[in-house]
Amino acid sequence: MARALLALASALPAVVALNNGLALTPQMGWNTWNRFGCGIDEDLIVGSAKALVSNNLTGLGYNYVLIDDCWHADSRDPDTGAPVENKDKFPNGIKGVADQIHSMGLKVGIYSSAGTYTCGGKFGSLGFEEIDAKTYASWGIDYLKYDNCYNEGRAGTPLISYERYNNMSRALNATGRPILYSMCNWGEDGPWNFAVDIANSWRISGDIYDNFDRNDVRCPCTDMLDCKLPGFHCAVTRILDFSAPLGQKAGHGHWNDLDMLEVGNGGMNFDEYVTHFSMWALVKSPLILGNDVTNMSDDTKTIVTNDAIIAVNQDPNGSPATRVWKRSLPDGGDLQLWSGSLVNNQFVFAVLNTGTSNHTEDISLIDVFTDQGKSFGSGTFTLFDLWQKDDSGKWGKNIGDFQGSVSVTVGSHQTKVYRATPASSSKRALEEL
Amino acid sequence: MARALLALASALPAVVALNNGLALTPQMGWNTWNRFGCGIDEDLIVGSAKALVSNNLTGLGYNYVLIDDCWHADSRDPDTGAPVENKDKFPNGIKGVADQIHSMGLKVGIYSSAGTYTCGGKFGSLGFEEIDAKTYASWGIDYLKYDNCYNEGRAGTPLISYERYNNMSRALNATGRPILYSMCNWGEDGPWNFAVDIANSWRISGDIYDNFDRNDVRCPCTDMLDCKLPGFHCAVTRILDFSAPLGQKAGHGHWNDLDMLEVGNGGMNFDEYVTHFSMWALVKSPLILGNDVTNMSDDTKTIVTNDAIIAVNQDPNGSPATRVWKRSLPDGGDLQLWSGSLVNNQFVFAVLNTGTSNHTEDISLIDVFTDQGKSFGSGTFTLFDLWQKDDSGKWGKNIGDFQGSVSVTVGSHQTKVYRATPASSSKRALEEL
Amino acid sequence: MARALLALASALPAVVALNNGLALTPQMGWNTWNRFGCGIDEDLIVGSAKALVSNNLTGLGYNYVLIDDCWHADSRDPDTGAPVENKDKFPNGIKGVADQIHSMGLKVGIYSSAGTYTCGGKFGSLGFEEIDAKTYASWGIDYLKYDNCYNEGRAGTPLISYERYNNMSRALNATGRPILYSMCNWGEDGPWNFAVDIANSWRISGDIYDNFDRNDVRCPCTDMLDCKLPGFHCAVTRILDFSAPLGQKAGHGHWNDLDMLEVGNGGMNFDEYVTHFSMWALVKSPLILGNDVTNMSDDTKTIVTNDAIIAVNQDPNGSPATRVWKRSLPDGGDLQLWSGSLVNNQFVFAVLNTGTSNHTEDISLIDVFTDQGKSFGSGTFTLFDLWQKDDSGKWGKNIGDFQGSVSVTVGSHQTKVYRATPASSSKRALEEL
Amino acid sequence: MARALLALASALPAVVALNNGLALTPQMGWNTWNRFGCGIDEDLIVGSAKALVSNNLTGLGYNYVLIDDCWHADSRDPDTGAPVENKDKFPNGIKGVADQIHSMGLKVGIYSSAGTYTCGGKFGSLGFEEIDAKTYASWGIDYLKYDNCYNEGRAGTPLISYERYNNMSRALNATGRPILYSMCNWGEDGPWNFAVDIANSWRISGDIYDNFDRNDVRCPCTDMLDCKLPGFHCAVTRILDFSAPLGQKAGHGHWNDLDMLEVGNGGMNFDEYVTHFSMWALVKSPLILGNDVTNMSDDTKTIVTNDAIIAVNQDPNGSPATRVWKRSLPDGGDLQLWSGSLVNNQFVFAVLNTGTSNHTEDISLIDVFTDQGKSFGSGTFTLFDLWQKDDSGKWGKNIGDFQGSVSVTVGSHQTKVYRATPASSSKRALEEL
Repeated sequence: MARALLALASALPAVVALNNGLALTPQMGWNTWNRFGCGIDEDLIVGSAKALVSNNLTGLGYNYVLIDDCWHADSRDPDTGAPVENKDKFPNGIKGVADQIHSMGLKVGIYSSAGTYTCGGKFGSLGFEEIDAKTYASWGIDYLKYDNCYNEGRAGTPLISYERYNNMSRALNATGRPILYSMCNWGEDGPWNFAVDIANSWRISGDIYDNFDRNDVRCPCTDMLDCKLPGFHCAVTRILDFSAPLGQKAGHGHWNDLDMLEVGNGGMNFDEYVTHFSMWALVKSPLILGNDVTNMSDDTKTIVTNDAIIAVNQDPNGSPATRVWKRSLPDGGDLQLWSGSLVNNQFVFAVLNTGTSNHTEDISLIDVFTDQGKSFGSGTFTLFDLWQKDDSGKWGKNIGDFQGSVSVTVGSHQTKVYRATPASSSKRALEEL
Repeated sequence: MARALLALASALPAVVALNNGLALTPQMGWNTWNRFGCGIDEDLIVGSAKALVSNNLTGLGYNYVLIDDCWHADSRDPDTGAPVENKDKFPNGIKGVADQIHSMGLKVGIYSSAGTYTCGGKFGSLGFEEIDAKTYASWGIDYLKYDNCYNEGRAGTPLISYERYNNMSRALNATGRPILYSMCNWGEDGPWNFAVDIANSWRISGDIYDNFDRNDVRCPCTDMLDCKLPGFHCAVTRILDFSAPLGQKAGHGHWNDLDMLEVGNGGMNFDEYVTHFSMWALVKSPLILGNDVTNMSDDTKTIVTNDAIIAVNQDPNGSPATRVWKRSLPDGGDLQLWSGSLVNNQFVFAVLNTGTSNHTEDISLIDVFTDQGKSFGSGTFTLFDLWQKDDSGKWGKNIGDFQGSVSVTVGSHQTKVYRATPASSSKRALEEL
Repeated sequence: MARALLALASALPAVVALNNGLALTPQMGWNTWNRFGCGIDEDLIVGSAKALVSNNLTGLGYNYVLIDDCWHADSRDPDTGAPVENKDKFPNGIKGVADQIHSMGLKVGIYSSAGTYTCGGKFGSLGFEEIDAKTYASWGIDYLKYDNCYNEGRAGTPLISYERYNNMSRALNATGRPILYSMCNWGEDGPWNFAVDIANSWRISGDIYDNFDRNDVRCPCTDMLDCKLPGFHCAVTRILDFSAPLGQKAGHGHWNDLDMLEVGNGGMNFDEYVTHFSMWALVKSPLILGNDVTNMSDDTKTIVTNDAIIAVNQDPNGSPATRVWKRSLPDGGDLQLWSGSLVNNQFVFAVLNTGTSNHTEDISLIDVFTDQGKSFGSGTFTLFDLWQKDDSGKWGKNIGDFQGSVSVTVGSHQTKVYRATPASSSKRALEEL
Repeated sequence: MARALLALASALPAVVALNNGLALTPQMGWNTWNRFGCGIDEDLIVGSAKALVSNNLTGLGYNYVLIDDCWHADSRDPDTGAPVENKDKFPNGIKGVADQIHSMGLKVGIYSSAGTYTCGGKFGSLGFEEIDAKTYASWGIDYLKYDNCYNEGRAGTPLISYERYNNMSRALNATGRPILYSMCNWGEDGPWNFAVDIANSWRISGDIYDNFDRNDVRCPCTDMLDCKLPGFHCAVTRILDFSAPLGQKAGHGHWNDLDMLEVGNGGMNFDEYVTHFSMWALVKSPLILGNDVTNMSDDTKTIVTNDAIIAVNQDPNGSPATRVWKRSLPDGGDLQLWSGSLVNNQFVFAVLNTGTSNHTEDISLIDVFTDQGKSFGSGTFTLFDLWQKDDSGKWGKNIGDFQGSVSVTVGSHQTKVYRATPASSSKRALEEL
C-alpha cells in the first residue's frame, strides 16, 4: 500500500468555523469609524459606497460597506424594544441605506456592542440579542461588528466571554440570513481559543491608531495572551507583534482581525502604509478600508489596489503567514521574516524592517521554507517582488531564480513581499492563477 | 456636503457613566482618614467643615465632608439590621452631623465596606446593601466611599467584583437620593473596565502613604493591571505610574481615584507635594484633602488653593492627561511628560522629575500635542506656568509664545505645569475662561 | 479639643479574625511530619509530648502536639461515614492520645485535607466537613491542619478556594469546641486576602525543606502572589521572600504560616537555623517544631529555647516585622533589613545576610524606624542583641545606646536580631516586660 | 522503640491515581498522528501493529496501538447519537481493527476531543461522553486520547477544565472496562494539579514537532504554569523545560505526557533523538512512537529499542527524574543535570548539552544525590553508561566506581545517561534487576 507522507498534518490551522458559509477568505470592505467616527449619515455612507464602485475598489474585493457606531436613535422602540436608527442621519432608515448599497451589488454591515451601551454611548445589545439580530436581518444587514464596551464585568474567563458572544452568534444564525459575524472583544480571554466556531473573525487587540511604532501608554500590554487592558492607540508594529503567535488559530471562515486599515489617513508615510497593508494581508486579517474613499491620494490608491498583495490575502488556502524570526538591528528596531503558503505550491514571504535605516540581509530560503522542511527549502525558487510591477504593468515582478538565499534590501519601516514558487513549476503555477 | 474631520473620534474617553448626575467633574472635599484614622467624632468633623468654609476651601470646590471608617456602633440595630452610629462619638447621630454640614452649604459622605467588616473592624455592608443605602439616604448622606475589606473571597474575576459592587450601586440608586458612589476596591479585577457605569469613581491602587517614591514592600505590585495584592503604603510616584494607562477609562461622572491627598501631613517636601497635587489634578483624580484643615501651614495652603491647578482638574472637558513619555535620567529616576486637553482649544502639560537633581530639557511641542497631530503641534503656543503667579497675583503666569519646543528646568521631585493655547487664539480663549 | 495624632492609623494590620478566640499570638508546638512523615503512632506522639514537657519546651509556649498525615484507617466507617483512625498505630484511638496529651496540660491537633484524599493518600474531608469536625471535637481535638491535595480542581479563584475552606471553618465552629484552624492551601488564590476571618493561620507557600537557599525546581515560583504551582522543596530564604509583602495581612488570631520549622533536622548549619528561627519569629509565623524532640542536640536546644526571640514572636502587639530593604551584595546574595514594633514602645529589627561572606553595614536607624517617621527615628535607642546573653545569662544583651546608625557585622547566612527601645524610656519599658 | 528515619517523606510524588489499575508505569505504544495525520485506515493500523510485533517492539513494552484523529464518519448515528467510524477507511469497523490488534496480544486506543469537534474537524465528545465511552468499550477499546479543540470556552479555571475532563473519566469508569485515560488539554489550567486522580496521564504542553530547539512563535509560552496559548510546533528542549517543575506531580497511574515521540521522523539528528528519547524516559513520560514503524532506519531502531533506557522509564518506583541544575554555556545553550531514583537503591542521572559544541564537566555526585543528602552523595558509586553496550552487547556499560565527581563529556545536543548504584551494593542490586 502506497501512502503519501502528510508532512505537516499537525500544522494545519483550525478546520471548523461558524457554519454560515461566509468569510471563506478574509472579508474586505470599508468602514466609517477610523475616519469619520460618530459623524456619519446616509449621504456619507451611500456616497462612499459609490466611490468604492467608481474607484473599482469593489472589483478588487472591497464589497462590504460597514456602518460603525452612532447610527442609533437615542433609545430603542419603547414598545417593542427593537433598535431604532437616528432618523435625522438616516431619513430612509438603515434599510433604505442597505437597499441602495445592495442595488450597487455590495453588502452592508452594522455595528453594536455586547454591553449595555455601545462605545459611543448608544444603546447596546446585551440582553437584546434576538430582537437586534432579527431587526438587522429585516433591514437586509449582511455583517455585524460586535464591540465590547460596557459589558457589566462579563469577561475574565473564556467561558464568560464565550457565552456573551455566543448569544449573538446564535441569534444571528437563527435569523436564517447569512450575516458575517465580526467579533470585537479586543482579544480579551483569547477569542482565538474560544470563538473559532462562533464568529467569522475576532479582533486581537485594542484599537489601532494611525501610527507605525509609537508605544502609546494607552495600549499598555506587550503581549495579548493575557492582556488585562487592551486599550487603544495601538501602533501598527505592536498589533503585528500581537498577531505573530495567533496565525495558527485562523482559517477559512474564522480570522484574526488586526483592526481596520489606516492607509490614507495621514499619520504614516508611504513605506509604513505599505508595511501595514502588506502584513495585514499576509496574516489574513480582514482588509477593511478606514479612510475617506471619496477623496484618495494616488499613494493611497497605489497601496490599497495592489492586486498581488490582495491575492495573497484572498488566497484560497487561507493559511496565515507566520513569523519565522525577528532579529534586533544594531540601530534599534528589528528585522522580521514572515512566511506562508499559497495554493498551487506557491508561497509568500516578507522581510520587514522596523529600524531607522536601510538594511540588507541575505535571507535564507531554508528559513523561508521552515515549515516545508530543509529538503524543500534547498530547491530553486522563482521570486516575484509584489511591490514591483512587471513590464506589463502588473504587480509582481519576476526577479529571477534563487537557491540558498536571496539578498534583500529593506528601507526603514519598509516591507518587501515576495511570492515564491519552485523554479520548475513556476510557469505552470502562474498560468493557473 | 461638507463634513468636519473628526480627527480623534476613537480617542474619546468612555462616554457613559452612572446616571446619578454627580461628579461631572472629579469630586473635591475632605476626608477624615489619612490624618485621623479611627479617631473621629462630631466635633472633629463639624470643626473641619467650618475650617473648610473659613479657609475658603469650599469656594474653591472642596465641598464634600467625608466621614471615613469608625463612625459605627459596635453592632447593627438588632431588630431592624439597620446601621447604627457610635453615640459617644456622634451624640446627634450622623444625621445631626449631616444637618450641620448641609447648613453650611456643603455635602456629607460616609464610609462602608463591601465585606462582612470594614477595614477598621466595624460591621460591613455585604448583604446589607439595601438597608444601609436607605439609612444613609435617611441621614442625608450625599456620598459613599465603599471599601473592600473582608470580602469573603468575592473577587478574582471582573464579574464577581462587578456584582458585589453593583449591589450597592443599585441600592443607592433605589433610594432616590443622588449619592455619589466612590468605589474603593483597590483596583482589583480592573474597575476601570467593569465599573464605568456603576460608580462615580474607583480607586486604582492600594492605599497611598505620605511618601514620594519609596518602594515599600507592602505595595508589592509594579503594575496594577493584574495585581493580586494592592496592599498599602503606596508612594505617590508608584500610584502615578499605575494611573498612566488608565486615563482613557475616565470621564464625566466616572473617574480614576488615585486616593486621598497627603498634602500637609508632613512626609513630603514642598516640591513633592506640588507634584502630588498637580498630577492628581491632571489625571482627574478626585481631590480629597486628607490633612488637618483646622491647622494648615502656609505651604499647604499655597498648594491646595492653587486655583489654576484646580481649574485643570475641574475642566469641563473631563479629559485626563496622558503620559506622553517617561525617560530614564542618568542619576536615577526619570523625566516624564504628561499632556491633556481642556475646553476652548486649550491644553495642559506637565514635566515631572523623579530624579535626584535638577534637569533641563527641551520639551518638543510635537510631543506635547501628540494626540492633536504634527500639524497642530507645529504651531505657536502661548504658555502659562501654573505654579507662577502673574502680576495681578493670579496663578498662571504668561511665559511667552513658543514654537517647536520649550526649555523646561525641573528640580528634583518637582513638577512644572503649563497651560497652552494656540498663540492666535490665546487672547479669546482666556476671555472665555 | 485636643486630639492625639494617629500617625499610622492606616498601617494597622487586619483587625478582624476568626471568632474562636484562639491564636491571639502565633501558635507554637510540635508536628510529626517534617521528621517522621507517615511513620507515626501513639508511642511516638505521646513520647514526643513528654519530651516537650521534660525539655521545658512547653514552658516556653510549645503547647500544641500535632498529629499530621497518616493517622487514618484505610477507610471511613462504612455505616456512619465518620473518620476512623488506624488501630494498629493508635490502639487507644486518637481520643486516647488526646487524653494523655491533655493530661500533661497540652493541646492536641490533627490533620486532614480539603480534598478527596490527603496528600498521603488517606481519605480526605471534602464533602465530609461536618462529620469530621464533630468527630474531631468528640476526640478532644484542639487544632486542625487542613491541607490541599486532591481538591478536584476547586481552586483558581479566591471565591472557589474560600468556599472550600470556609466549609470546614463553619463545621469547626459549629462543634462548639474551640479548634484552632490552620489552613494549608499553599497560598493558592491568596488566603491572606480571603481567609483572614475564617482561619487562624494559612500557609503562604509550598512545603519547606531543610535547606537554606537552594532554588529547587520543584518550588518554581519566585513570587507567591499569583503562583500556579506552589510545589515543595522550598528553601528558607525563598519562603521568607514570599512572606515579605504579606505581613500586613496578619494579626491577632490570623497569621501567615511560613511552614513548620526544620531546626534540628540536619540540613542547615547553626547560623542558618538561627536565621530560620529568628525570621519565622519576627514575621509572626506559627512556631511549630518539626524535629525529633526526644533527641535534640545542644545547638538545636539553644536555638528553639531562645526566649527573647520567642517573646518577639509572642509579643502582644501581634505586628509582623516588615522588610525595609533588600540590597544585593557584591559577592552574590543580599543583605536585608527587617523591622517591626512591639508593645510598650519597643521595637525589633533584624539584619540578614544571604551572601557567602561576612558583611559589615551601618544600619540607619531612620530606616529601622521607617514606619515611625524620621522624627522618631532620629532619637537615641538602646539596643539589645537577642542572640547574645547578658551577664545574668538571659538572652538579649544590652549593647548600648545608639543614634543615627549602628554598625552591624553579619556572617554568611546569619541574622542579627535587636530589640530597640527609646533610650529615655528603656528602663521603664524593660520593667514592664 | 526503634524508628527508621523517613528522610524524604514529604518528597514523595502524589500517591493517589485514577482507580482503573492502568499505567502503573508510563504507557508505551505507537500512535498514528505524528507521521500520518488524518491519512489513516485499517491497513495502516493493522500493518503497523504487525510491524510492532515483527520488530519485537512489543516485547520491549510498546503494546498500545493508538488510532488518533480522523477515524470518524462525517456524523454520528442520526438515531442513537453513537459515534460511527468512516466505513471507507475502516470497512470492518474500529471493532474489526481492535479484534485484530487484540489477537496479536496488543491493546488498542482511540481518540476524541472534549469539544464540539475534534482538532481535525470531526464530531467531538462534549455532551456525548456516556454514549461515546460505552461505544468505545463495545468496540473493545483499551485507551482514549482526549483532546481539547473546540471546547466552547470551557477552560480558564481548574474547576471548569476539571469538570469537562472528569465527565469523560466517569463515563469511561462506568463502562466497567478498564480504559486508559490519556488527557490532552495541552496543560491548560494545570492538569498536574487537578487531574491526578481522574486521568492516567495528561499532556503538559502544546504539540511537539520534529525539532530540537527552535523557538517557533506558534509555541509562544516560555513557562507552562499559566500559559494562555499552548499552541503547537513546540521543540523538544522547550517541552523538556516545561516538564522540569512537574515531575513532583506524577507517579504510578498518573503521568506527565510530554507528547508523542518524533524519533525516526527525520527532523533531528541521532544525538538529538537520543536526547529526546532519554529525557522522555527519565521524566516518566509515556513513550508513544510516532514514526512509521513499518519502515525504520537502523538509527531509529537503535534508539527506541534501548532497553536500559526503557527500563528507567518503566522502573517500578515510578519516580520522575528532577532537574538539579541548568547552567548557561559560554557559547549559548546550557548544560543540565537531571537525577532520579530507581528501585533497589539504584539511581539514574543524565547530563544534557543544548549548546553548539562539546562540553566536559565534572559532575558532582553530591549534586546528583541532592535528594538523598550530602552524606549519601559522598559515597562511592558504580556508574553504568546507558548509551554504551557492555561486552555482552547489553546496554549499560560499567564505567567504574566514582566518588566525589565524575567527568562527563557531552556533545552538542547530546545527552549522557548513567545508572548509579552504591558501590558496595551494586553487585547485589544488579542481580535483582
